[in-house]
Amino acid sequence: MKEKFRYGIVGSGALGGYYGAKLAQAGGDVHFLMRSDLEAVRRNGLTVRSKDGDIHLPHVNAHGSPEEMGPCDVVLIGLKTTSNAALPALIPPLLGAETALVTLQNGLGNEEFLASHFGARRVMGGLCFVCLNRTAPGVIEHFGHGTLSIGEFKGPPQDRTMRLVTDFQRAGVEAKAVQSLITERWRKLVWNIPFNGLGIAAAANVAQVLNDEPLHAAARALMAEVIDAAGSLGYAIRPDFIDFQIQRSWPMGEYRSSSQIDYEAGREVEVESIWGEPLRQGRAAGAATPRLELLYALLKRLAGRRGA
Amino acid sequence: MKEKFRYGIVGSGALGGYYGAKLAQAGGDVHFLMRSDLEAVRRNGLTVRSKDGDIHLPHVNAHGSPEEMGPCDVVLIGLKTTSNAALPALIPPLLGAETALVTLQNGLGNEEFLASHFGARRVMGGLCFVCLNRTAPGVIEHFGHGTLSIGEFKGPPQDRTMRLVTDFQRAGVEAKAVQSLITERWRKLVWNIPFNGLGIAAAANVAQVLNDEPLHAAARALMAEVIDAAGSLGYAIRPDFIDFQIQRSWPMGEYRSSSQIDYEAGREVEVESIWGEPLRQGRAAGAATPRLELLYALLKRLAGRRGA
Repeated sequence: MKEKFRYGIVGSGALGGYYGAKLAQAGGDVHFLMRSDLEAVRRNGLTVRSKDGDIHLPHVNAHGSPEEMGPCDVVLIGLKTTSNAALPALIPPLLGAETALVTLQNGLGNEEFLASHFGARRVMGGLCFVCLNRTAPGVIEHFGHGTLSIGEFKGPPQDRTMRLVTDFQRAGVEAKAVQSLITERWRKLVWNIPFNGLGIAAAANVAQVLNDEPLHAAARALMAEVIDAAGSLGYAIRPDFIDFQIQRSWPMGEYRSSSQIDYEAGREVEVESIWGEPLRQGRAAGAATPRLELLYALLKRLAGRRGA
Repeated sequence: MKEKFRYGIVGSGALGGYYGAKLAQAGGDVHFLMRSDLEAVRRNGLTVRSKDGDIHLPHVNAHGSPEEMGPCDVVLIGLKTTSNAALPALIPPLLGAETALVTLQNGLGNEEFLASHFGARRVMGGLCFVCLNRTAPGVIEHFGHGTLSIGEFKGPPQDRTMRLVTDFQRAGVEAKAVQSLITERWRKLVWNIPFNGLGIAAAANVAQVLNDEPLHAAARALMAEVIDAAGSLGYAIRPDFIDFQIQRSWPMGEYRSSSQIDYEAGREVEVESIWGEPLRQGRAAGAATPRLELLYALLKRLAGRRGA
């Protein structure tokens, strides 16, 4: 690979726009594939409003087609997983011999999906603990963040993993490499499955789930099912992770997950990647997942109805 | 007991109003305890609109207080279970030495509640398979019905059970005595728990539950949990009852349960008697009820929120 990565951002909503803007501001060679925001960004540039300091990039490399964008060293994928079907057509013009595909998307199955189309060797993933909102074309509100955890789909970190981590760190994004990306995905799901799910099905924010005794018990029981499913698949998570997750949830207060916000705003919900795929994988591995099964059935129906 | 029962109706909404009107039309000595509908019924009488033939009773014994109504031989209780707390004050003036208290209410726990206040010996119950709607004060719409199953809280049918069945049959209500009232209540819950519950939580009518693969599977799994809970408590229901219930549901089409209609209209939902009490009883008997537990948590939150 070259001295300096050429970055391509696919799915330049809040997630792709934010990480791309951070890299670009730090001098990175960043190219954004845009559709709905293209004209606005060409006219006004890209803006991130953040308590860490606002970013305004008057000129970014905004492209209207993957052919115009051309081959990249690293493609960061920030598309909503409900649009994954678009990727097999969008990605090929971005591929060079060594191009890495890094899915920053939620839930399970995105690495597998990319691997099935472009080969497992190219695939990496990142887990984003970040709070973002796209408030207008080319304008992203940034509320807070934790670490961006980056890993290889298969195996431990490689040179490219570390280079990516370094690029993000230089751009002011707290980043680290993880030994087992898929274990980290399951760990994230331990929180997302109950809190995003009950958020929608019970119309309850984090504090409301925690303070309602039967919902609180349901959240813990769902966490135990997710840990059990992960364990059945060989991704060990300790049971005391449940207490840890509950403890770290209290300070969130009236926080609503992005899934709940999407649902309540009438937008698509990533039902398959957050609930459907973990359920199917856990069940295939012999785990007992009765609550997850019911929750998935409810969310699929509710979200499908909302989308309709 | 006397030659002819003196009937008192407590909770003269759709349920109490309908059965009371049928008995009164057939010449029964029926007394209605009324609150919101009292003035309208005194002025205009009681009306039932039905494809079996309309009933209009220009003069009924409508009372504004239990003291005015006085002792009865049989008290039919049609109150919503969410108002059960009113019963300990309403019932005493209606009691003679032999007065039978017959709860026509939904779910579990109503017989136990009456027994705890007035002694188990007085308590009977009826399972109403009937489709009613109170459309105006003193006006009830009747859409269809099945059998009214009447039984003793404790033990097999007695003379009074058979007399009650006979009175209803003479009044044109298909009625029968049941050997084990509580087994019948559990059998009814095998349908109500999934279909009323998913109706609310998934915003789905009967056809939508049946035609949606994950929801259909969830309904069957919930039925199996209810049968298991009933079995743990000593009320045996055969597993093939699930197929029977699913088969009889298909012709219902877009039917919405009364719970779902109540919820969607912003009225109170009988969460504790239909879901909470079966869950608590089943759990206490050692049954595994993970789905029922989650469904109850969701419904309690959704209904409480709606009521608030």
